[in-house]
Amino acid sequence: MINDDEKYMREALAEANLAFEAGEVPIGAVIVFEDKIIGRGHNLRNLKGNPLCHGEISAINEAAEFMGDWRLENCTIYVTIEPCPMCAGAIIQARIPRVVFGARNSKFGCGGSILNILNEPRFNHQCEVTEGILEDEASEIMKKFFKRFRKNQE
Amino acid sequence: MINDDEKYMREALAEANLAFEAGEVPIGAVIVFEDKIIGRGHNLRNLKGNPLCHGEISAINEAAEFMGDWRLENCTIYVTIEPCPMCAGAIIQARIPRVVFGARNSKFGCGGSILNILNEPRFNHQCEVTEGILEDEASEIMKKFFKRFRKNQE
Repeated sequence: MINDDEKYMREALAEANLAFEAGEVPIGAVIVFEDKIIGRGHNLRNLKGNPLCHGEISAINEAAEFMGDWRLENCTIYVTIEPCPMCAGAIIQARIPRVVFGARNSKFGCGGSILNILNEPRFNHQCEVTEGILEDEASEIMKKFFKRFRKNQE
Repeated sequence: MINDDEKYMREALAEANLAFEAGEVPIGAVIVFEDKIIGRGHNLRNLKGNPLCHGEISAINEAAEFMGDWRLENCTIYVTIEPCPMCAGAIIQARIPRVVFGARNSKFGCGGSILNILNEPRFNHQCEVTEGILEDEASEIMKKFFKRFRKNQE
């Protein structure tokens, strides 16, 4: 299980890297169904001028098209950084049973850091959550991005 | 102000009605900027087979395209029913300053009913929220939908 988790988190990190190269906050996601990636995405909020263009949302969009269903049952979503409220909400709307993320986000994380949307007992869906997979790589690329960002601001 | 709120909530209700006619849970939304509707949408989750196809998400998508920016500053979103976690999260991601909704939703509402994503002091954006505008109409069409839905299930 851990090996598979690392394998797919590497794919999410590859997506995060595409965001980095595009000058966007480097967060990436992939969705896996029956050992196959059926959706992938990375943050492109600035380039697209669209607040919905987070990696998880793009990956869910692609996966729903693949499945022909709004229910992404038996899927796992891998995301490099703990999901924001919008993405955590989309994950439960899609009924994704399992979420694997790399590093926590203390500013907007909704897998327990600020709110716990992924595991709110009053909602009609709760996720199994695994965190800390390739955590160092996930947070390293974020630090690299914000270091460059601050340098460009000087 | 109330008159404008009612005027635009009628437009959101017209969107909800389109969802009703399509056999979808009847929730609708419009986004207003400088006294003009720049985005509209209604729930089409089943027909589109896509968990992202809530009215608010479609309206935000359209409004971002109109503005050419992910920041929907100086906009108001009107939605017939209190937003779910995904849509409340999208509203704060889009930095929409004002949210007007009709009726509360005790099962997934994130404008205070279950969680309060629209006004979480630890996030970097909080919304001014007005609720109860054309509340009866907003909840009536939902009741009508679920009554028909249950009848079809019998």
